[in-house]
Amino acid sequence: MRVLFHEISFSTNKRVQIVDLTGEVRAIANRWGVSNGMLLVFAPHATASIILNEAEPGLERDILNLFEAVAPADVDYHHNRIDNNAHAHLRSVVFPPYVVIPVRNGKMLLGTWQRIMFVENDGPRARRTVIVEYIGE
Amino acid sequence: MRVLFHEISFSTNKRVQIVDLTGEVRAIANRWGVSNGMLLVFAPHATASIILNEAEPGLERDILNLFEAVAPADVDYHHNRIDNNAHAHLRSVVFPPYVVIPVRNGKMLLGTWQRIMFVENDGPRARRTVIVEYIGE
Amino acid sequence: MRVLFHEISFSTNKRVQIVDLTGEVRAIANRWGVSNGMLLVFAPHATASIILNEAEPGLERDILNLFEAVAPADVDYHHNRIDNNAHAHLRSVVFPPYVVIPVRNGKMLLGTWQRIMFVENDGPRARRTVIVEYIGE
Repeated sequence: MRVLFHEISFSTNKRVQIVDLTGEVRAIANRWGVSNGMLLVFAPHATASIILNEAEPGLERDILNLFEAVAPADVDYHHNRIDNNAHAHLRSVVFPPYVVIPVRNGKMLLGTWQRIMFVENDGPRARRTVIVEYIGE
Repeated sequence: MRVLFHEISFSTNKRVQIVDLTGEVRAIANRWGVSNGMLLVFAPHATASIILNEAEPGLERDILNLFEAVAPADVDYHHNRIDNNAHAHLRSVVFPPYVVIPVRNGKMLLGTWQRIMFVENDGPRARRTVIVEYIGE
Repeated sequence: MRVLFHEISFSTNKRVQIVDLTGEVRAIANRWGVSNGMLLVFAPHATASIILNEAEPGLERDILNLFEAVAPADVDYHHNRIDNNAHAHLRSVVFPPYVVIPVRNGKMLLGTWQRIMFVENDGPRARRTVIVEYIGE
């Protein structure tokens, strides 16, 4: 059994933003020489999300609009008395900060249109972190 | 340590539809003779969801109505300039295409009312695939 | 490889309620002496949710308001002909009843503001159960 970790770090430069992590996660898995197991891609953040879907620019706008519709930024939330980012926390509750992906024969079993996308709900941030963990053979 | 895979394939015949996979997943786990570990039930599709809930016909209608409420089909989404299925992608973002289930002493630790349900958001489709992965002892 | 289980039981005393499980999950992981692996925290219930976010009282109210907004209690759902809790099932579909957490060097890799929170969508209940499973080295 192997349990492997890698930490990806990056900055975000917009208030809300999608960052496609697929290539980097695949490169890490290839470098490790994974075989059969699963990958957990996890953001240790309460105001970010990780989703699996298509990285098409129009759809990315639709996704950010959906995030806004689910938890609008301009609402007078209780949490905003403490910190002005309740909407970002709520979006991270609806769209959790991790995904789990099967890995077989060294390959992530993603569908053709599935990309691993980090969603910044409370940017810009100088440093965001995503943990990539492999557990398997 | 054992890592096992099985692929379930089926067609869907409606625009939106719930397919209860519990019996088939349980049959696969039994055939494997699983002991202690976890199951990942993963659809490699960007326009489908997998949920855990009760398979009661009235509730299934409520669930499909909820999917429609969260991302209505009749909105002029940006992605629809490319493909007329943005609503189905968005539903797969809100309701992700996988679930993780604990397995102990050979049994999935599902609650009485928890069924593993595939949700078709963009049907009908001649072929949908669900990957069942076991990782454990 | 080790696969370990512990069952947490508790009662809830309100119709909707957040129960912070972080301390108890951490205590279980410490008692086990976990090293590198992952934790699955899973509620075998179709009317509960488990989320990862900040345990700030104002935000907890915002979160419960969000649950109400996503699936309001006072709607005439189809499932309510059978049992008067469709809204609670729907909330468990939008906010699933489990989370997966990376564990490295014996520590859960949670962010500063991430707490493991059980959400009761259909209380009060005399007995709710949460399964904590570790799979790893």
